[in-house]
Amino acid sequence: MLASFRSDLPAASGTWQPPPEYSFVGGHNDAASVPFSGLAEALVNALRREGSNLAYYNLGGSPLGYRPLREFVASQLGARAGIQGGPDQVLMVSGSLQALDLVNNAMLTPGDTVLVEQATYGGMVSRIERMGVNHVGIELDNGGIVLDHLRSVLDELRTQDISPRYLYTIPTVQNPTGSVMPLDRRRALLGLAREYSLPIFEDECYADLTWGCERPLSLRALDGDGGQVIYCGSFSKSIAPALRVGYVIADEPVIRQLLALKTDAGTGSLEQLALAEYCPSNFTEHVDRLMYTLRTKADAMVAAVRSEFGDNVQVTEPMGGIYVWLTFPAGTNTDALALAANQAGIEFNPGSGWSSDHEWGKRRLRLCFGAPDLDTIRGGVAALAQVYRASL
Amino acid sequence: MLASFRSDLPAASGTWQPPPEYSFVGGHNDAASVPFSGLAEALVNALRREGSNLAYYNLGGSPLGYRPLREFVASQLGARAGIQGGPDQVLMVSGSLQALDLVNNAMLTPGDTVLVEQATYGGMVSRIERMGVNHVGIELDNGGIVLDHLRSVLDELRTQDISPRYLYTIPTVQNPTGSVMPLDRRRALLGLAREYSLPIFEDECYADLTWGCERPLSLRALDGDGGQVIYCGSFSKSIAPALRVGYVIADEPVIRQLLALKTDAGTGSLEQLALAEYCPSNFTEHVDRLMYTLRTKADAMVAAVRSEFGDNVQVTEPMGGIYVWLTFPAGTNTDALALAANQAGIEFNPGSGWSSDHEWGKRRLRLCFGAPDLDTIRGGVAALAQVYRASL
Repeated sequence: MLASFRSDLPAASGTWQPPPEYSFVGGHNDAASVPFSGLAEALVNALRREGSNLAYYNLGGSPLGYRPLREFVASQLGARAGIQGGPDQVLMVSGSLQALDLVNNAMLTPGDTVLVEQATYGGMVSRIERMGVNHVGIELDNGGIVLDHLRSVLDELRTQDISPRYLYTIPTVQNPTGSVMPLDRRRALLGLAREYSLPIFEDECYADLTWGCERPLSLRALDGDGGQVIYCGSFSKSIAPALRVGYVIADEPVIRQLLALKTDAGTGSLEQLALAEYCPSNFTEHVDRLMYTLRTKADAMVAAVRSEFGDNVQVTEPMGGIYVWLTFPAGTNTDALALAANQAGIEFNPGSGWSSDHEWGKRRLRLCFGAPDLDTIRGGVAALAQVYRASL
Repeated sequence: MLASFRSDLPAASGTWQPPPEYSFVGGHNDAASVPFSGLAEALVNALRREGSNLAYYNLGGSPLGYRPLREFVASQLGARAGIQGGPDQVLMVSGSLQALDLVNNAMLTPGDTVLVEQATYGGMVSRIERMGVNHVGIELDNGGIVLDHLRSVLDELRTQDISPRYLYTIPTVQNPTGSVMPLDRRRALLGLAREYSLPIFEDECYADLTWGCERPLSLRALDGDGGQVIYCGSFSKSIAPALRVGYVIADEPVIRQLLALKTDAGTGSLEQLALAEYCPSNFTEHVDRLMYTLRTKADAMVAAVRSEFGDNVQVTEPMGGIYVWLTFPAGTNTDALALAANQAGIEFNPGSGWSSDHEWGKRRLRLCFGAPDLDTIRGGVAALAQVYRASL
């Protein structure tokens, strides 16, 4: 191979292998729930009406994304999360991972510091580290970020003359803990962020799948015209992850700055057309049905963990989403457990990668339950418990 | 706005405006030729068969992309461009712009030097400059890169101890000149690149639209197992630009390194499914029909330029694609002409942005003819000539 690469690249990907029998990783969803017939019908209708516009980048419209879909996102988030604002505050992106990359590329420089939740989305931790940016984890309880700890971290950083570039938070169906931050804490968090001039990057990827309580107003909604919050979300969890369609909501100057960094000549039009046509009449009913299915799986997962692991594991019933977060006794090493589990055809996310303090995460792990059926959930948790007991 | 951005960002995007009456920019295509009914039918069939796989990232398969589409790309490029190799040497990307970004991110560090054609794709010039990388333009004639000049540049750089990281070339339907490099020059270019250990980044985005001659074997094909060439292509020009589907072809270690940098969780599945289902039976016939239409537009564009501008402009009939490249007398400033033309409802690409030496490009410009109809082509060129004469 002649091509010579930079010396600081991540390791090359290995050869792809199909998932093992018991796969509890990744944001996959319930296969039987994917509304593919509805999406197909919607797309046929949309193409019959305006298929020739595929000849133009962005269907001949704004690079912010297909306008009817931005209108749906704006109105849906108005209704569900209380966010005010029109389609020009919405940037459609190629999956919410692109939202993370755009915001990071716009705001972060190597050596910067950001705040994250002590347990948080692993893909964000790896992104931040790859950029040479420091992250500090804020403690979580059942209601999300512990504000006293946040304040003490901000005070401590201030003595070092460090202004964190943002706080990244997943307040609704927190990843991986599955908690939902109550409304009063959201108001207090926003007040604290204003007091310290701390921008908030709010990720509500899973918020459409909230069943354990009423979905609270988002931080972005509570902020009103404050300009304190950049918000992102996705259709991956509510419709299908193989569609690569997410969105950023922010003030227009922010949206236009992010757009200048979005150099992919637009997000896929077939997917935007299909969603824009399907969602207005079908989104709510579909998501309600999907949540029923996911809740059944969540209940089965939590019951299996409790029955198989007993007192060895703490687990909390998730308020929505597709994952549970397990805490083992001190001294447990879930990185090692993952290796042993792989030998037994089981995969899960070790907690170290899902934590700001990797050491803190070592006695924890995440199990995803969106894709596996009930028998696989029960069989896989039993098999994992067997591997765990053998490791003691 | 509280969010504070890095100080080195490109300017925020302006508010989107619809195109003017005479729009001759962008890779748009002929609207009447988009096979949207065929794509819709194909997608319905594919979803009926495997729609529930949308529940999984990458449809449950390899992150390289949907395997039947990678197989089509491999076999199609075998037949059309002589490239040998199977689907594991194909990485599907979210438009070929992502291919440019992946290769650049893998190979380039600020301060590096790359070689480009003296007139080349503007989006590549801006990417390279944004990365703080130097580019040196190699002279072109009607057969593409002038090899004597390439050798003298390589020798000159060698005296400065500079090894260019790659040569970026568009040998087939060169953007913007529309030339096709003959086979014997391709062989000689490859020999020179081997002699100087110069990796080649071959962009054949427009090569499916070659009508002025037989499409020659690609550099990647001629290289065989040499590992000298990374190749990219796209469905944007052959099917529709609003689909964001392109591909990289390279040796497997290169593909796996690029994949490790592709952090978007996969390219859109609806678009990959539609293409994989549509293309095997329809691609060749569709592209043949499309080329007939584009050639008619190219002829009209060249005839209009010659008749309206006469001796004031040199223009060459393109061998394919969707653009022509105009050279004006010394002293012309097409940046200024563009501003005046915009006032008259005309847009084109000034040559400065499409050239490694921006000053050299100032007497040149690019006109795209894929999207406008014949009347718009004729009317727009006449209107542009009027603006030009008024500027003299």
